[in-house]
Amino acid sequence: MSDRNHAPLMNSNAADQSNDRYVGIDIGGTNIVCGVTDSDGQLLGTLKWPTEGDQGGDFLVSRLAEMIAVLFKEQDLVLDRLKSIGIGIPGFLDPMQGIVEFAANLNLRDYPIAKRLGEKLGVPVWIDNDVRMYMFGEYMRGAAAGHDHVLGVAIGTGMSGTSINHGEILYGSRYLAGEIGHAVVEGNSYVCGCGMTGCLETLVSAGGIVRQARDRMASAHSVLAEWFPLEAGQSDKMTAADVARAYDLGDQVAIEVFEYTGYVLGVALSVPLILTSPDIVVIGGGVSRAGERLLAPLRRTLKERTHPLYGEKVIVAGALLIDEAGIIGSAVSAKRRSEQIR
Amino acid sequence: MSDRNHAPLMNSNAADQSNDRYVGIDIGGTNIVCGVTDSDGQLLGTLKWPTEGDQGGDFLVSRLAEMIAVLFKEQDLVLDRLKSIGIGIPGFLDPMQGIVEFAANLNLRDYPIAKRLGEKLGVPVWIDNDVRMYMFGEYMRGAAAGHDHVLGVAIGTGMSGTSINHGEILYGSRYLAGEIGHAVVEGNSYVCGCGMTGCLETLVSAGGIVRQARDRMASAHSVLAEWFPLEAGQSDKMTAADVARAYDLGDQVAIEVFEYTGYVLGVALSVPLILTSPDIVVIGGGVSRAGERLLAPLRRTLKERTHPLYGEKVIVAGALLIDEAGIIGSAVSAKRRSEQIR
Repeated sequence: MSDRNHAPLMNSNAADQSNDRYVGIDIGGTNIVCGVTDSDGQLLGTLKWPTEGDQGGDFLVSRLAEMIAVLFKEQDLVLDRLKSIGIGIPGFLDPMQGIVEFAANLNLRDYPIAKRLGEKLGVPVWIDNDVRMYMFGEYMRGAAAGHDHVLGVAIGTGMSGTSINHGEILYGSRYLAGEIGHAVVEGNSYVCGCGMTGCLETLVSAGGIVRQARDRMASAHSVLAEWFPLEAGQSDKMTAADVARAYDLGDQVAIEVFEYTGYVLGVALSVPLILTSPDIVVIGGGVSRAGERLLAPLRRTLKERTHPLYGEKVIVAGALLIDEAGIIGSAVSAKRRSEQIR
Repeated sequence: MSDRNHAPLMNSNAADQSNDRYVGIDIGGTNIVCGVTDSDGQLLGTLKWPTEGDQGGDFLVSRLAEMIAVLFKEQDLVLDRLKSIGIGIPGFLDPMQGIVEFAANLNLRDYPIAKRLGEKLGVPVWIDNDVRMYMFGEYMRGAAAGHDHVLGVAIGTGMSGTSINHGEILYGSRYLAGEIGHAVVEGNSYVCGCGMTGCLETLVSAGGIVRQARDRMASAHSVLAEWFPLEAGQSDKMTAADVARAYDLGDQVAIEVFEYTGYVLGVALSVPLILTSPDIVVIGGGVSRAGERLLAPLRRTLKERTHPLYGEKVIVAGALLIDEAGIIGSAVSAKRRSEQIR
């Protein structure tokens, strides 16, 4: 139910919202990025501060409130027009109650962050998993804009997926849907940070790409071995971007790494692709900067391993808003949720 | 919006619906089963007639109308109280428009079955894929009743899956979500009826179980070879139920077949399990009669191949309403859809 509106009918909706502001926040282990959008999800400005995640919940809430005040001042915006705040958080959480159940990087456990920040600022605050908000941003204004059914996969330090259908995020039981990086891949013996052996994420992630390259360098010639000699202990400095650089020089090891990464990802996504029948598969996160190096073998594998009704029709594309998707997704999602409960 | 109700408040809802009837129809390649339920989805009676699928759409519509009339007469019900009809159909269809785009077994192409039957009987008719309706029946009144998030897999002549979340079926782009039997399994060289090689369905289906048993019989001792000698051409008569019977006698070939079938299914469902985070995985269809012979290796594989948050928490269970789920699902789904558009 919308609030009763006593303004003249003529300029009711457009005039109402044109100066409304929405904040989206993306909390990472290293940095907090805070952004402000208009009512269409258009980003007006951002602010980035270090996270200082060890300081706990009350410190974080004060920091977020301060960031929002500074951001509005910098952008010459009126804080009174702030309508809602959305926050994407890496960790386990209850998006309906607004409670962070556990976020190791932020030193939070069962912390009611939405309530605390909401009380401080007097506006509704909504939280959600950071990757879901990232993919929701891509759905609203990025690579998946205009598509009804989306399978999004974020690949960075870790990896996870999100299914969005007609704008509805699939949360699943206990809001746990998505952590597909922790499915085991046949024949993969890498040990994962989660304690399991063989997780998809040990191959398909920034670290996974480096790990694969380092292993292949030991037994095959590669320009990567010249740049980062194993025996000199330099290989620790290698990044997924370096492997991409070697790929562009025609380095066989680097080519094999991206081919295998795309293949493994394609195998993992083949059944989900058919089960959810997306219009588009969006690959985001830092590793998506690899572009076609990764997307080409992924696309090929999906075609080879699924019925043509799925693999040949689906669009496989990289994310468009790599750095801004999380902020926009959080801001728009919070706006929508605030409107739903009015 | 509900119709305005001028009846006294006291007995409004209960009295209104107590004599309302809903028809659910499950059209198979061999038989049509037609059932009638009350407003709670409780099945009051069924009728089974041969399909005669080669006769086309107008014949089918007449047959369905006749079946409904006979069923209501047999059950001593008043046709005037029939509120809506739901039909589960094996084939490609547009459930929103009520059009069967293609159903080979029924000799239908772009046939507006919902409109035709609706005009004949004067009630709303809704159609959907037969497996979705089957799993919706299990969700409403079967193994998944009371669970919010369900991953259902029907295994019979073919196999496919359905994700249901808070009562919403995931349809995907072009309503194609679900045909997971047509994802390719690593190392599987069986040719599928769909034209591809290596489809999951060539292993995980009634025919797939027999196919596996026949191949293993050629090189290992099995009681199945005594019952159905390969050299005498008897193995064509073997069914999945026979393999289950051999399993119960401790037959090694039969045990390996069910173990491998459960394993392959578990591998295929591991990423979907994490992506959708169901409370329960329901295995239905004729092959689900194998029960724990199949469910035990499936459950074990899901535990081994997914993070404990998923694989150890999820319930893996057989369908409860094997023969009636499709009818109940169609009847309840049609009731809901009629109420939504009123």
